[in-house]
Amino acid sequence: MNMNNQKWFLSAWFSREKYINNQDWYKLQNFISDKETPFLILFKDKARNNYQLLKELYKDSSIYYAVKACPNLEILKIFIEEWSCFDIASIYELDLVLGLWATPDKISYGNTIKKEKHIKYAYEKWIKMFATDSEDDLYKISRAAPWSRVYFRLLSPCIWAERPLSRKFWCEFDMAYSLAIKAKELWLISYWVSFHVWSQQNDLTAWDLAITKTWELFKKLEEVWIKLEMVNMWWWLPTQYIKEIKWLDEYMNEIKNSLKKNFWNNIPEIIMEPWRSLVWDIWVIVSEIVLISKKQNAENETKWVFLDIWKFSWLIETLDESIKYPFYVEKTWNTSPVILAGPTCDSMDILYENYKYELPETLISGDKVYIFSTWAYTQSYSAIEFNWFPPLKIYVL
Amino acid sequence: MNMNNQKWFLSAWFSREKYINNQDWYKLQNFISDKETPFLILFKDKARNNYQLLKELYKDSSIYYAVKACPNLEILKIFIEEWSCFDIASIYELDLVLGLWATPDKISYGNTIKKEKHIKYAYEKWIKMFATDSEDDLYKISRAAPWSRVYFRLLSPCIWAERPLSRKFWCEFDMAYSLAIKAKELWLISYWVSFHVWSQQNDLTAWDLAITKTWELFKKLEEVWIKLEMVNMWWWLPTQYIKEIKWLDEYMNEIKNSLKKNFWNNIPEIIMEPWRSLVWDIWVIVSEIVLISKKQNAENETKWVFLDIWKFSWLIETLDESIKYPFYVEKTWNTSPVILAGPTCDSMDILYENYKYELPETLISGDKVYIFSTWAYTQSYSAIEFNWFPPLKIYVL
Repeated sequence: MNMNNQKWFLSAWFSREKYINNQDWYKLQNFISDKETPFLILFKDKARNNYQLLKELYKDSSIYYAVKACPNLEILKIFIEEWSCFDIASIYELDLVLGLWATPDKISYGNTIKKEKHIKYAYEKWIKMFATDSEDDLYKISRAAPWSRVYFRLLSPCIWAERPLSRKFWCEFDMAYSLAIKAKELWLISYWVSFHVWSQQNDLTAWDLAITKTWELFKKLEEVWIKLEMVNMWWWLPTQYIKEIKWLDEYMNEIKNSLKKNFWNNIPEIIMEPWRSLVWDIWVIVSEIVLISKKQNAENETKWVFLDIWKFSWLIETLDESIKYPFYVEKTWNTSPVILAGPTCDSMDILYENYKYELPETLISGDKVYIFSTWAYTQSYSAIEFNWFPPLKIYVL
Repeated sequence: MNMNNQKWFLSAWFSREKYINNQDWYKLQNFISDKETPFLILFKDKARNNYQLLKELYKDSSIYYAVKACPNLEILKIFIEEWSCFDIASIYELDLVLGLWATPDKISYGNTIKKEKHIKYAYEKWIKMFATDSEDDLYKISRAAPWSRVYFRLLSPCIWAERPLSRKFWCEFDMAYSLAIKAKELWLISYWVSFHVWSQQNDLTAWDLAITKTWELFKKLEEVWIKLEMVNMWWWLPTQYIKEIKWLDEYMNEIKNSLKKNFWNNIPEIIMEPWRSLVWDIWVIVSEIVLISKKQNAENETKWVFLDIWKFSWLIETLDESIKYPFYVEKTWNTSPVILAGPTCDSMDILYENYKYELPETLISGDKVYIFSTWAYTQSYSAIEFNWFPPLKIYVL
C-alpha cells in the first residue's frame, strides 16, 4: 500500500481539475447518468478555443493538423473553419478533409509510403506537396505528380522520450542530401525538412540538436544551389498524461533560441504539426469496472481490475505500457496496486501489469472509471469484429 | 545473403504447396487478377471438409468452435450446418450465432469477464453454461443466471510455446477448488474444467501435465461430493506457420494416453475447442509491395519492404513478432534479409524487424506478396479509422 503513488490513480477533485475543470465535469456528470459505458465525451467548444490559443502562441508559423491523431469529423470541421492546414496519411484521409471543404493548397501528403496510383490520385485532386524519404518514392512522385514540392523526413538524434519511435519513416542525413540532389534531377522542388524529436520528449535540448542538423542540411544543399524554404519542427509537442510536462511556451523559447543561433537572420518559414498537444483536454473516456478478481487465494495476491474498454479499441497506446493515462475514480480510500486489463478474450488485452496503478480498495464492479488526455490515437484505433464488441460511441457536448 | 533461410520466405511452388494446393492456387490467380490489394481469399468448400475431417479424427468429443478466432459469417453458417457447438466471448457474439440459427444448448459463454447485465441477457436467451475464474463472477452468475452450469479455467504449467499467453483468464488450482465449493453454496453446477497448454505448443508433454492437474482437481472435489463431468482440453492445437508442427493425430494419441493413465475407466466427456487448427489453410491474404527503401546510403544497409497490409488490420499477431507467417512471392532469385513493415503512419506498424525474413533481391514495388495460414485473428482484428484506410475486403471462392 503506497499512498505516494495515489496521484497516478486520481481520486480527489483537486487532481481531477488538472485535466477537466469543474464546470465541464458537472456537465459531463449530468449527461452520462443514463448511458451505458464505454463511450467517449468530446467537449466541442474547447476544441476551437484550444486551436486559437495555440495559433496565438505560435504566430509566425502555419499549423498543419495531422489528421491521423484523431479523424473526428466535428473536430476537423472546426479546424477547417479556423483555416488550419492538414497533414494527411492516405488518400482516404484526403477524401475525408476535401469532403469537409478543406482546400488542396492547405494539404500536405505526409506519408512516405505511398502507392504510385495513390500519388496520382492526390495529384489529380491538386495536392502538390509530398513527404519522402527514399529514392523509390521520389521516382514515383516524379512520374505521378510532376513538378511537385517534396519534403524530407530527417532522422534526428534520439534522446530519451516517453514514447520512443522507430526509424520507420525517416532517413539519415546523407540520404536526405542525396534525395535532394535526385529530386532536382527529377524536376521536383525540394521544399522543406521535417524532423521529429521523439514522442513525449521532455528534454528541450532535443530540439536544438535537431535544428542544428537541419541547418547543416540547409547549408550543405545551398552549396549545390538547392534552397530549402521551410522547417517542420513541431511534431510531437507532448501531452499531459500522468507525468508532468513543461509549459508549451518553454518549448517555444527553446526552439526560437535555437533557430536564431543557427539560422541568424535567415530563419525559414516554420510549420507546426501538433497532434498530441493540440486538444488533449477536450476528450474523456468513460468506462466501468466489469470484474475484480485474484488468481489464487494468497492474501497478498495482486488484484486484477477489468474495465469495459480495451487495448485494441481506443487504448492502443497502452501497448508496452508506453503511454500512462490519468485514470480517475470517485472513491478515495486506501489504495493498493492492481493489474489493469480489458474485457476481451485476448490475453494481450492487459493495459498495465508491470507498471502498477494504485486503486482504492473499496472499488467494486460497476464503479465508473474516467480516463483523461485520451485525444490522440484513441478514436483512430478501434478494432472491429474481435469478440464482436461494437465500435465505441462518441458523444459531443 | 543466406539461401538456407529462403524457406521462411517461400518462393518455389513446392514450398507453396504445403499451404495451398495447385488447383486452389490457379483458381486464386484467375480470380484476383483485376482486384486491388489488400484483400483476403476464403476457400469456402474446404471449410466444411476440414470440419468433417477433424470431427472424424476426434469422434468421442464435442467440438466447440471459438467464434473469436474468426467471426466470418460464411464459415459460421457452415459450422452451424455441421451441428458444431460454439464458444462465445460476448453477448454480441451470442446474437451473431443465434442470428444464424445456432441453438442455445450448443453455446457456452467462455469469457470469464462479464457484466452482470450481460450474463442476464445471455441467460434470458437460454444460455446455461458459463466460464468462470473468480468469486466476483460466480456471485454475478448466481444472481443473473441461477442454477446454471459453470466451468473453471485452470492455469496449467507453462512449458515453452511459440505464443506464450498471460494469466489473464485463468486461476490457480487452489482458487479453482474454492470456486467449486462456493459454486455449490450458490446453487450453481460445477460442470467442467478447461485448461490451456499455451498457444502454438509443440511439446506434447504439456498435455499430460495439464491432464494430471485436472484429474487431481476432479479427485479432490469428489471428496467433497462435487462431481465434474467434462474436460475441455483441446484449446490451442497449433497451426502450421513457418515452423513445422506435428500431425494432429500425434497430439490425439498423447492426450488419449494421458487420459487413460490418469482417469482409468472413468474418462470424462471431452470437449475440443479448436481455433487456430481448424481451418487454417482455407484463407490467403493477398498483399502488394508499396515501397522498398533504405535509411542511409551505406552499401550493406538493410532494406525496408513496405506492404499494403498492416499490423493493426489483420496482422495483430505480428505483435512482438510472435507469430511468423509464411510469406510467398513469385520471384526466386538471390535473397537478402529485410525489415517488413506496413504502410501506415504508425511507427509501431513494423511486422518483422528482429526476425529477418529473406526476400529475393529482384522484387520491386507493385509485386504481389501472399500470406498463408492467416485464418485465426486476422479478420477479427481490423482497426478502423487509423489513416482512414477502409476495412479490408474478403472474397469468398
